[in-house]
Amino acid sequence: MSVGKFKYAQIANVVSEQITAGIFRPGQRLPSLREFSSRRGVSLNTILAAYVELERRGIIEGRESSGFYVKAQSHPRPSPAVSSRRVIVSDLAHEVILAANDDSAIPLGFVAPAAEFLPVKSLAMIVKEVCKERPERLTDYIYPPGHQELRVQLARRSLEEGVGAVAESFLITSGTMEALELALRATTQPGDTVAVESPSHFNLFPLFAALGLRALEVPSEEGTGVSLPLLFRALKKNKAKAVLLTPNFNSPQGWLMPAEKKRELVLQMQKLNIPIIEDNVYGDVYFGSKRPPSLLQYDEGECVISCGSFSKTLGGGWRVGWIRGGKHQATLERLKFMSTIGTSSLPQTVIAEFLRQGLYERHLRQLRRKLQENSEMLAKAVLRHFGPETKIAQPAGGYSLWCELAATVDSERIFHQAQEAGISVTPGALFATQASRYNNCLRLGFGSPMTRKTLNAIGRLGQFVGE
Amino acid sequence: MSVGKFKYAQIANVVSEQITAGIFRPGQRLPSLREFSSRRGVSLNTILAAYVELERRGIIEGRESSGFYVKAQSHPRPSPAVSSRRVIVSDLAHEVILAANDDSAIPLGFVAPAAEFLPVKSLAMIVKEVCKERPERLTDYIYPPGHQELRVQLARRSLEEGVGAVAESFLITSGTMEALELALRATTQPGDTVAVESPSHFNLFPLFAALGLRALEVPSEEGTGVSLPLLFRALKKNKAKAVLLTPNFNSPQGWLMPAEKKRELVLQMQKLNIPIIEDNVYGDVYFGSKRPPSLLQYDEGECVISCGSFSKTLGGGWRVGWIRGGKHQATLERLKFMSTIGTSSLPQTVIAEFLRQGLYERHLRQLRRKLQENSEMLAKAVLRHFGPETKIAQPAGGYSLWCELAATVDSERIFHQAQEAGISVTPGALFATQASRYNNCLRLGFGSPMTRKTLNAIGRLGQFVGE
Repeated sequence: MSVGKFKYAQIANVVSEQITAGIFRPGQRLPSLREFSSRRGVSLNTILAAYVELERRGIIEGRESSGFYVKAQSHPRPSPAVSSRRVIVSDLAHEVILAANDDSAIPLGFVAPAAEFLPVKSLAMIVKEVCKERPERLTDYIYPPGHQELRVQLARRSLEEGVGAVAESFLITSGTMEALELALRATTQPGDTVAVESPSHFNLFPLFAALGLRALEVPSEEGTGVSLPLLFRALKKNKAKAVLLTPNFNSPQGWLMPAEKKRELVLQMQKLNIPIIEDNVYGDVYFGSKRPPSLLQYDEGECVISCGSFSKTLGGGWRVGWIRGGKHQATLERLKFMSTIGTSSLPQTVIAEFLRQGLYERHLRQLRRKLQENSEMLAKAVLRHFGPETKIAQPAGGYSLWCELAATVDSERIFHQAQEAGISVTPGALFATQASRYNNCLRLGFGSPMTRKTLNAIGRLGQFVGE
Repeated sequence: MSVGKFKYAQIANVVSEQITAGIFRPGQRLPSLREFSSRRGVSLNTILAAYVELERRGIIEGRESSGFYVKAQSHPRPSPAVSSRRVIVSDLAHEVILAANDDSAIPLGFVAPAAEFLPVKSLAMIVKEVCKERPERLTDYIYPPGHQELRVQLARRSLEEGVGAVAESFLITSGTMEALELALRATTQPGDTVAVESPSHFNLFPLFAALGLRALEVPSEEGTGVSLPLLFRALKKNKAKAVLLTPNFNSPQGWLMPAEKKRELVLQMQKLNIPIIEDNVYGDVYFGSKRPPSLLQYDEGECVISCGSFSKTLGGGWRVGWIRGGKHQATLERLKFMSTIGTSSLPQTVIAEFLRQGLYERHLRQLRRKLQENSEMLAKAVLRHFGPETKIAQPAGGYSLWCELAATVDSERIFHQAQEAGISVTPGALFATQASRYNNCLRLGFGSPMTRKTLNAIGRLGQFVGE
């Protein structure tokens, strides 16, 4: 993605948000190219490209020698107010998890790297080195905040992406899920409301249910993640104690929140004094040329708690993740101590050494190339087999392809049909507190090799979709 | 401990409880030896030994040719009713944890096996085997309920101790602490009350605080753990949702609840329909000749949820434990999935293999012998150095020696003095919700080699106690 393209898309998104928020009303004329260009300090061509893009999206229209106007129908109907909901976990979630756990199935329900994409040999080598040189690492506890060298390595990576950090900024956790749980515990009480993007990763809902939290589900915008105008409006009407988002390649859609939008989000949340819990588990698996920044990069008030792990890059079996909680760090350490005492010592030691030897970056380059190829193969196959009414979200990173099927298609039925055919998929119903909201959607994972068998499975799924 | 001794001590405890509960009142004559003997089906000599023991404890008195009577002063003053308390975690707890984490200190604050007592070489060997033969075990997730072979091995061990089990009975957790947390989550809601023995392991209180639970602290009885009459009375007055106990070698005292008492406990809780959460983390480190049964052995109504781990036998660094939740198993599996997804794969695989090769039982025999020796050395040193007013609890297993100092001694002061002298200890204040309750007590761990340096440290502690 070229800088130019990035910039015009970003501007288009800002304007789109302003239209959604009612700043520009239907029929209203948008600022002239020249006006906009001088106000924003960007080239006329970039503004023109942004307007053309908005025209393509059907949001605005160009009128001969008169400029660009907001289209009448583009103004959202006064949408039902976003309100928080109690979270109840369906049996379907458990069924889907069990199905994804079935090794014999074609793993389109799986959104993590398959063993084929992992540096298993070099990891095994390091395990052996640790056994030889630091055997006490097998048995000794490592208490919170966790393995020192691992935290040093995390701090180093963080510095490289422009976010100041020291080893002390990090607490090691048992994967991102534990990190998110700790973050929620540190910032909320049972009964509180937490804002999330919609659709949201389905693992969040059981977690909310366990902690007695209410979910305030704010719709996402095409390509850029949660709608800021809708988020701000929802937060005015609902008292939320935290906002939990995945700005870098959310699952299911794999969208990347543009830098400008991230900055605005953090700024507004700082003003409202609402902590943002960032799930950055996919941050390393970008398809662009550069690791996208964490929200921490825009955080001047210790408003952001950022969570991540090695599950999507070195495999979930390690159960090693981290959390950066700023002013909450001491609380998080205590909560960690009293929930699992520490994270398993050998996995922490092995990963620390893998990073220290410089093997991680090399592996990531290969993994990202593979994932991007895979995502394109999967998207092509879906578009061929799923029929013309199917829309796909174009992922900018991550492991999943979100397919919006014709409105009448029941993805729960497809899940069951696929399961019988030995194919795991994730039905859209799981990605919201109301099953009906995305029931015509399907999430497919591309973390496993796109073999002939897998591509044939897409064909089978296409048949189920068509039925 | 001979069977005879065990029996009379058990009978003495039952009678003592009945006196505490007011079934026998001060001045009242106890049943004659003959009467008691025929009613209980035990020998006259055993009853006589029990009465003599109670006389020794100052609870009853023998009167010439007239029998045994409850002593006037032995009837407890109408004790303040046991009532539930909100749990607030002191900064001291965190300080103590940090101190125990200090590798340079003499580790009398540590109640787990030191590396010297662990089969590090054979574990390292197995790690290497796994790397070679099952490298995918490094990176692949193992979802709840956890590693199949490990659960098979746990079921086998369980069968050996007389508790029927299949692999499906077990859910693998990240240590006992996670198991206890899952058990509490499955049985309680924030605001609920849970009965515990007093003193209780101090890790419980931060956990209760995090889950918003109230603690109902029921006093323990010398040598046998929680007082059943007091527990039953407390449960009549307070609505508790669960009882959490460590019947096998509780930390701090290392006491073993006799079989008869376990049976009675489970029976009564079944009647009251209150689940018992058993912390059986010390079950394998007994000083007697036989592994004491879990409460599960007496459970006919799926009343017991039993938790354990390998932390006290193979080292805490693995973070591998388990839970047997009977009818709660499906709920526990879901809760586990949504808190840490799974437990780290490599540690589960290594421990499964260690058990499968029969290395675990061999290791346990050596570890237990070592611990018993250590406990005796430590007790001797404490009695020599701590002054005549110090009483110690005689541990029947586990890792800790509970020292009751003169009533005026402030163990928090000793903790700080010891810390400055490079010795870690655990002050009694942590073992109850009210710091004052056991502030004249000190817990010392004997899981590390009793070197000259350690024995000298006891001498230093003795000086602090005397000040």
